[in-house]
Amino acid sequence: MSMSMSMEEEQPKSRGKPIRCRAAVCRKAGEPLQIEEVEVAPPKAWEVRIKIICTSLCHTDVTFWKMESPPATFPTIFGHEAVGVVESVGENVKEVREGDTVIPVLLTDCQDCGDCNSKKSNKCSRFPFMVSPSLPRDGTTRFTDSQGEVVNHFAYISSFSEYTVVDIANVTKIDPSIPPNRACLLGCGISTGIGAAWKTANVEAGTSVAIFGLGAIGLAVAEGAGIRGATKIIGVDLNPEKFEIGKKFGVTDFINPSDCGNKPVHEVIAEMTDGGADYCFECVGSTSVAHQAFARCRKGWGKTILIGFEMPSSQLSFSSYEVLVSGKTIMGSLLGDFKPKTDIPLLVKSYLDKELRLDDFVTHEVQFEDINKAFDLLISGKSIRCVIWMDKKFPPPI
Amino acid sequence: MSMSMSMEEEQPKSRGKPIRCRAAVCRKAGEPLQIEEVEVAPPKAWEVRIKIICTSLCHTDVTFWKMESPPATFPTIFGHEAVGVVESVGENVKEVREGDTVIPVLLTDCQDCGDCNSKKSNKCSRFPFMVSPSLPRDGTTRFTDSQGEVVNHFAYISSFSEYTVVDIANVTKIDPSIPPNRACLLGCGISTGIGAAWKTANVEAGTSVAIFGLGAIGLAVAEGAGIRGATKIIGVDLNPEKFEIGKKFGVTDFINPSDCGNKPVHEVIAEMTDGGADYCFECVGSTSVAHQAFARCRKGWGKTILIGFEMPSSQLSFSSYEVLVSGKTIMGSLLGDFKPKTDIPLLVKSYLDKELRLDDFVTHEVQFEDINKAFDLLISGKSIRCVIWMDKKFPPPI
Repeated sequence: MSMSMSMEEEQPKSRGKPIRCRAAVCRKAGEPLQIEEVEVAPPKAWEVRIKIICTSLCHTDVTFWKMESPPATFPTIFGHEAVGVVESVGENVKEVREGDTVIPVLLTDCQDCGDCNSKKSNKCSRFPFMVSPSLPRDGTTRFTDSQGEVVNHFAYISSFSEYTVVDIANVTKIDPSIPPNRACLLGCGISTGIGAAWKTANVEAGTSVAIFGLGAIGLAVAEGAGIRGATKIIGVDLNPEKFEIGKKFGVTDFINPSDCGNKPVHEVIAEMTDGGADYCFECVGSTSVAHQAFARCRKGWGKTILIGFEMPSSQLSFSSYEVLVSGKTIMGSLLGDFKPKTDIPLLVKSYLDKELRLDDFVTHEVQFEDINKAFDLLISGKSIRCVIWMDKKFPPPI
Repeated sequence: MSMSMSMEEEQPKSRGKPIRCRAAVCRKAGEPLQIEEVEVAPPKAWEVRIKIICTSLCHTDVTFWKMESPPATFPTIFGHEAVGVVESVGENVKEVREGDTVIPVLLTDCQDCGDCNSKKSNKCSRFPFMVSPSLPRDGTTRFTDSQGEVVNHFAYISSFSEYTVVDIANVTKIDPSIPPNRACLLGCGISTGIGAAWKTANVEAGTSVAIFGLGAIGLAVAEGAGIRGATKIIGVDLNPEKFEIGKKFGVTDFINPSDCGNKPVHEVIAEMTDGGADYCFECVGSTSVAHQAFARCRKGWGKTILIGFEMPSSQLSFSSYEVLVSGKTIMGSLLGDFKPKTDIPLLVKSYLDKELRLDDFVTHEVQFEDINKAFDLLISGKSIRCVIWMDKKFPPPI
């Protein structure tokens, strides 16, 4: 691809020096991002400076963009679903080199701790998961604005910048033959949904699945469940337009809670299945939806998988008797239990092998300077994923 | 064994007719049981009349004995851990015949519904689990007292009677060579603990286990986990005497929360393990203990297994963020996810093969007329299991 050519031209100039480039800075909760010139420091030990090719907008960016108090921090450079090319590497980095195509991933994979060395966990103990604040391991930022003030990192990635610095523990090298506007999707939401179906729930063939919330993650759950051979995939969403897009990812049945009259959604699901779905996925980030999902999980073996993020203070409440006698399991799924460095390259391969469908997740594409349109499209429910291209040399196809 | 001889003598007289025999009737919550003469009707279709050989007292009996309002019902014949010999069978019963040694089990196994036909569930859909009230499938009782008043069944078993009538869906035929005062234990508590370790948690070799509550179920979890090769088995109990008995079942470490000073139990467990136990078993029936168990479960792959019964109204509360990001699973275990007719005979074999240790669970044995002593011993924490012998022809060895 042509970007590696351009990288080779830039490297001799930029390596070891700060880079001045454009970034979309958020100065205050809920305010439009401003394209500003920032300075991106060279990578320190264990760090990689990445030239972002394109990035997509995920609901977690929006959640923290709206958040007026900690853990949100301002000014910040958001963005955490992206693909790029390594511009330069700091000391001790042997895993990638200049010109490699990489996906930065918010979940760390240090490959050294008990969790990273276990097949059962993707929860690195050395660098515990934290969306915000999320500074590099030395506790300082690599971004400064034109006034010389520091700008915060977000989710260890900050991909709404032409260049960013990411810890090697957050970098996954991938096959560069996947188009960048497909690769970026695998950095968070889509991997999360696929992994929730494949690894967390371990969906079996011939089973029934109920998905609460048909955003990108919910649709990715449908895609993952369909690949595993689930035969009934029920989507639940208040937006009736989600059924059409859902069908593209294998959703077989659709429930709009607004159309159910007096009948609760969980009764409708019970009637459509053998008393409940074998797997219920909560992709909204709402405790009340989580409770519905648990209620309509098949007794005996049903699994309720929580994927949607809610505020840290919110509490789930389950009847202890129901948990005890129902045989239902409650579990969460962070990045679909995928281990970034092991599993994301496999997803890339699955796409290139035409097994995993990614194309239809991208409903919109914009240039970097129009990044606020991506926010409008996602918030209004019009987009599933809007890809933001950093460089005019890579114009959006739409 | 000699009981089958005596059965053969009785059958011609009793088959098809009511039997008058002794039963320990509870007339009012919390009051001592009274040994009374009751009439036990002959088994109807799908029913089996069993001569109880011996029975043991489980905490669930005590819970319902204390319960002043529904679902408890009075007068009732408690008892649900037992072994006996089939005295006669009703119409359509082909699975067992007169003289067979059987364990009646409170969990039904109709062998006909979707759940009973699935390897994944032990939650019969045809006869859903209900401890009380628990009448035979025609909705009437088989017990009447000397005044002609009906007496309720408990947990479908009512083994505190010399004879009882049980649905064939609740009857498991076993190898008669296991001693009765070992066989009876497998009707509920011990099977529950073993199954929670083997089937629900699927404990792996080399792992760590924390058990909250070292009653019979908790000790059985230890035994099950030890057989699976768990290397650290931590028992948590307020009764310091439980450590000595715990050692007999493989408990390697003991925590008495009273001795921890200001340090919370979950911190002590974190220090003894790699930040948390791979499996945490709640065997007390307390939501606050369940919360502690979840808190001290290893992130990434830890499983919290709820076994203890609490009041149906009690609510578990978990941080949704914690469930989402921790990778910990919450699950309940009813009869250890064992399918009675399939798995209990395997436990009998495991005991006869000297793999599964049952002997040390029996700390006391009494004659039927001393049944209230069994209550005192269990409530005061002095007994793990007290076996109650129905017939003086089988005197307790102690």
